[in-house]
Amino acid sequence: MKKIKVGVVGGTGYTGVELLRLLLAHPQVELAAITSRSAAGQAVSSLFPSLRGCVDQVYVLPDLDVLATCDLVFYATPNGTAMQQVPDLLERGVRVIDLAADFRLKNEAEWDQWYGMAHACSELLREAVYGLPEVNRELIKTARLVANPGCYPTAVQLGLFPLLKNNLVDFNSLIADCKSGASGAGRQANVGMLFCETAESFKAYSVAGHRHLPEIKQGLSLLAGSEVDLTFVPHLTPMARGIHATLYANLTTEVDLQEVYERYYEQEYFVDVMPAGSTPETRSVRASNVCRMAVHQPQGGQRVVVLSVIDNLVKGAAGQAVHNMNIMFDLDESAGLSLAGLLP
Amino acid sequence: MKKIKVGVVGGTGYTGVELLRLLLAHPQVELAAITSRSAAGQAVSSLFPSLRGCVDQVYVLPDLDVLATCDLVFYATPNGTAMQQVPDLLERGVRVIDLAADFRLKNEAEWDQWYGMAHACSELLREAVYGLPEVNRELIKTARLVANPGCYPTAVQLGLFPLLKNNLVDFNSLIADCKSGASGAGRQANVGMLFCETAESFKAYSVAGHRHLPEIKQGLSLLAGSEVDLTFVPHLTPMARGIHATLYANLTTEVDLQEVYERYYEQEYFVDVMPAGSTPETRSVRASNVCRMAVHQPQGGQRVVVLSVIDNLVKGAAGQAVHNMNIMFDLDESAGLSLAGLLP
Amino acid sequence: MKKIKVGVVGGTGYTGVELLRLLLAHPQVELAAITSRSAAGQAVSSLFPSLRGCVDQVYVLPDLDVLATCDLVFYATPNGTAMQQVPDLLERGVRVIDLAADFRLKNEAEWDQWYGMAHACSELLREAVYGLPEVNRELIKTARLVANPGCYPTAVQLGLFPLLKNNLVDFNSLIADCKSGASGAGRQANVGMLFCETAESFKAYSVAGHRHLPEIKQGLSLLAGSEVDLTFVPHLTPMARGIHATLYANLTTEVDLQEVYERYYEQEYFVDVMPAGSTPETRSVRASNVCRMAVHQPQGGQRVVVLSVIDNLVKGAAGQAVHNMNIMFDLDESAGLSLAGLLP
Amino acid sequence: MKKIKVGVVGGTGYTGVELLRLLLAHPQVELAAITSRSAAGQAVSSLFPSLRGCVDQVYVLPDLDVLATCDLVFYATPNGTAMQQVPDLLERGVRVIDLAADFRLKNEAEWDQWYGMAHACSELLREAVYGLPEVNRELIKTARLVANPGCYPTAVQLGLFPLLKNNLVDFNSLIADCKSGASGAGRQANVGMLFCETAESFKAYSVAGHRHLPEIKQGLSLLAGSEVDLTFVPHLTPMARGIHATLYANLTTEVDLQEVYERYYEQEYFVDVMPAGSTPETRSVRASNVCRMAVHQPQGGQRVVVLSVIDNLVKGAAGQAVHNMNIMFDLDESAGLSLAGLLP
Repeated sequence: MKKIKVGVVGGTGYTGVELLRLLLAHPQVELAAITSRSAAGQAVSSLFPSLRGCVDQVYVLPDLDVLATCDLVFYATPNGTAMQQVPDLLERGVRVIDLAADFRLKNEAEWDQWYGMAHACSELLREAVYGLPEVNRELIKTARLVANPGCYPTAVQLGLFPLLKNNLVDFNSLIADCKSGASGAGRQANVGMLFCETAESFKAYSVAGHRHLPEIKQGLSLLAGSEVDLTFVPHLTPMARGIHATLYANLTTEVDLQEVYERYYEQEYFVDVMPAGSTPETRSVRASNVCRMAVHQPQGGQRVVVLSVIDNLVKGAAGQAVHNMNIMFDLDESAGLSLAGLLP
Repeated sequence: MKKIKVGVVGGTGYTGVELLRLLLAHPQVELAAITSRSAAGQAVSSLFPSLRGCVDQVYVLPDLDVLATCDLVFYATPNGTAMQQVPDLLERGVRVIDLAADFRLKNEAEWDQWYGMAHACSELLREAVYGLPEVNRELIKTARLVANPGCYPTAVQLGLFPLLKNNLVDFNSLIADCKSGASGAGRQANVGMLFCETAESFKAYSVAGHRHLPEIKQGLSLLAGSEVDLTFVPHLTPMARGIHATLYANLTTEVDLQEVYERYYEQEYFVDVMPAGSTPETRSVRASNVCRMAVHQPQGGQRVVVLSVIDNLVKGAAGQAVHNMNIMFDLDESAGLSLAGLLP
Repeated sequence: MKKIKVGVVGGTGYTGVELLRLLLAHPQVELAAITSRSAAGQAVSSLFPSLRGCVDQVYVLPDLDVLATCDLVFYATPNGTAMQQVPDLLERGVRVIDLAADFRLKNEAEWDQWYGMAHACSELLREAVYGLPEVNRELIKTARLVANPGCYPTAVQLGLFPLLKNNLVDFNSLIADCKSGASGAGRQANVGMLFCETAESFKAYSVAGHRHLPEIKQGLSLLAGSEVDLTFVPHLTPMARGIHATLYANLTTEVDLQEVYERYYEQEYFVDVMPAGSTPETRSVRASNVCRMAVHQPQGGQRVVVLSVIDNLVKGAAGQAVHNMNIMFDLDESAGLSLAGLLP
Repeated sequence: MKKIKVGVVGGTGYTGVELLRLLLAHPQVELAAITSRSAAGQAVSSLFPSLRGCVDQVYVLPDLDVLATCDLVFYATPNGTAMQQVPDLLERGVRVIDLAADFRLKNEAEWDQWYGMAHACSELLREAVYGLPEVNRELIKTARLVANPGCYPTAVQLGLFPLLKNNLVDFNSLIADCKSGASGAGRQANVGMLFCETAESFKAYSVAGHRHLPEIKQGLSLLAGSEVDLTFVPHLTPMARGIHATLYANLTTEVDLQEVYERYYEQEYFVDVMPAGSTPETRSVRASNVCRMAVHQPQGGQRVVVLSVIDNLVKGAAGQAVHNMNIMFDLDESAGLSLAGLLP
């Protein structure tokens, strides 16, 4: 079988190295180019000794002519980078998955506001397909440009969809109390993310407003068919990988929640609804592409509590990108993604 | 100045060793007896080498005659232990602070239900003073028996009091999403609390109902003057010390929340309301008796978010017990408790 | 291609679950039976939710008739268990890999002394092949019974072999200062391995004598061709996976150590000699079967320092067992073991 | 009693904030000035919320006239800073304790080589007293300038002194295998010290030569009375605080090592020799000024193994500086330093 020629732009961050790990193990992928402006000329394995023996490539500059030889290019770059190059790549017939936020919002003004810059190719915002396979599988198949969802938005949306789709809760009662491991902050020098600042401590951040808030609201509202409000409080927890979303909503009807959830996701390979009463651990999905969840109704009251966990670097980033690639290129959806979580 | 003769029953757990650390540094305390059934005859410092050079005592059996020579006895024992001995001690004129849950609930039936046994001296449930100094300072002064609050209840109640006292929120909209370090689970052999089960992972637990729920509701309802409902979801976070309570409620009125909080606690030595926009870290109170909090109103909406952090072993247990002792014996409230948090 | 029918005895510990993870991803393995006395009747995935969706089997009792239908049985049991059943299995034509210590020592008296019991089938000690592929590849191919090496012995022996084989150091000057993650202690309830006892702390243990000492000395002496002495000090470090061996020896000759090491291991798939000056991190081999090492001669002096890292659960246990299986059944040596390390 | 007027130069790093924590709790200290070039004008407690309520001072510039009003100035600055200002301060009659390395080495050429710059006041290298109270107590009493020892050198020297002083070992056989928590690397933005780079991993570093090597050799040689050689390999371990030194030497005589160690340190308040067979944990000295050690002779052989632990920020930095201050100003040696370690 012919392999897909793949380029990875920005291969020096945590999302990038995780993407390389997954692509190197994928049976139908040929890694044609790994680019980095800062590390150009260096061996990939010199930056990431974990890859010694698995990859012998050298970082190259993100040259358009090099990337244009690929079937698919992944962008694992900071926000605002992909949008500079994507229009040219699309024109040359290359398909693109952006793991950053450049194409996640439909509303240009909103994008400009939250990301603090003017969008460089806003005409593509409408075309870009939001790459959450569980809602957009059909559109992803033929997409030229996929906007890979953010980590928090993946955990939160998947956890709330069954409630909204079935109109079971008050759309103004939604709360997402989310906890993330430190890898979500990326691999930049930053006093606040030093081991000694992060270990043995827990805190909230960006309570006034986090960039993932408009992305979550957009996705929920679209699915619900009407405007949805949400209070979103992200927290930093002293671990490297994992997101745990604890989701609250007020029920407006009596229903068997367990059955609703199981039925909603029964066809999904990468969403696992646990038995009633369960509490998913983030480590149960470490290094795996699964979103694992459980639904609770404490004391049989009016409030529903959903617990939803993902590995932020896999289902929340690189794994979901590979899943999107599998769909775009008509491969088995689980190709390269079927490994069990790493425990302990 | 004459020192207070103090006994510590159950000095082999995390609460016990923290209590010993604080009492050993307290200028007006004489440690008369440290008891343990399992470790009787062993040097305290052989179990806890951190205390070598600070204490040369040996664990003794919790004999009533020994304890009766004390002015004050602390119980740092499992639930259901103190209630077996407390009536006799009180009769002998010894004052008692129970760090376990034996005297925290006023309603006997509720106690029996949540703790799974029949209370051994329910007649004392009414007399026992709930030892949250910020609400019960006057009663604590003369109390014979103080029920030291639970760790979650301390962080949650202190965080919500200003809202309830001033009638600012819908009493049915309260949510407490709480995160605790592993020391809250105690020092018992238990597969679930092994390093390899707890590190690099995050999970909720006891979603259906945690023993601290009735304690929190009792305290909130008492202060509010009417029945209060609450959804309480505790989580385990991979650190040893610290609780972070993220509290949600729906505002029913417009008000300057920052001012409400600062005013409410302006006289309190151990509650620190941070400036508007702050996000307290649990490590900022590590090893200190402070409850540090911040109040937010995201996007100026109708929902208030309070962030409240404590060290579960200090303000959530041993430190609060020493604070209660200081009040009971008319000492400076901060005696032995004025140290800054340990960072990093 | 016909798959190998495999049984796993003792599938509830960390070594067991790691072995399951690797075997489930192995293209030529059929998992015929997973046994556990304590968990018999329970779904494997109920104990390890990380395996939900990957395995739907139920733990069965370690019945000889069930195991006898396998081509190969792995024992991931406590020391002293495999030796009760292995003679019968061998007689029935089943090949065995024991991940515990039952068949690692050649000297029965020594085994009895260090493991505190009488060996149940000492006649097999001589036949058993010590499963370190880098030295015993040929013997492993035809072995009926393979004794999978201990975690410390793997890291230490691989690090010292090039020095001993080439007679470059004083055989009485060897020191192995080893640091292990907490998973080495297994998944048993044990106060000393609680998160709160292990996190944020570092200590040595078993300084007077650790069971891996005779195993290391036996392997080193065999390879060196004469008796070798060694001081071995194991330490516990606050992480789940990984062993770092820091090895010291006095050089007796001048030699290009980097070249010696690179040449010694140039044919080995799972030993990676890093460039001169490197310092391998344990995380670079997390979840991978590689032993990564670097050799130093500080200040050009007479002392050589070797740094050798493995994942104790993979190259130090389950991965090495799969490697042995691949050799025994004439598969590609890297089958099921080619994944890059997980970072971060 | 008149308080000592103290200045702290460089109060924004981990050593600085720990020094502030200790000085704020010291009964005989008045904090006259806390300086920082980068944070001048900001409240100290805004950088370190753990100090809210304990200090209301603002960082000021390190102005000579301000510092000259102090009795004692501590430098908690990067290497090369104190030497620019110390001569002027001494001239004005202010005593100085430098917690950096500016005055630790006696040999100027060696200093210039290891620290990569020319020393600014090498005439003071001879005068400066090396502030290890256990060897230099008398000199410290009257010193104008104290060079506070490095963290590794403290743990290593204290562990080896009894062997060298009593001439019990081969001076060319010494090995110091040391493990440090991440706070030793300071509070600077640095990719290598991010949580995700440091957690769940262990590695050696600076194997070719670490700046603490000449300091250790100088101290050991001075005490031994002849040149001492040492192989020193530092490692980074995933915790914030603590150093564990594992020390190896070849015995040249038969002796009761336990008795040698106990006698050597019997008068020392801050050195704790544990009972034979013990293995000190770093957490047993967390937040305390104690160096805790144990001496072993594995299998009764010729090799001695000493385990020596300290809190690198306390006995390895700020606590030892306060100890030196106590000696310089004729206070009780343990003033402000008598607290037990924090556990867990």
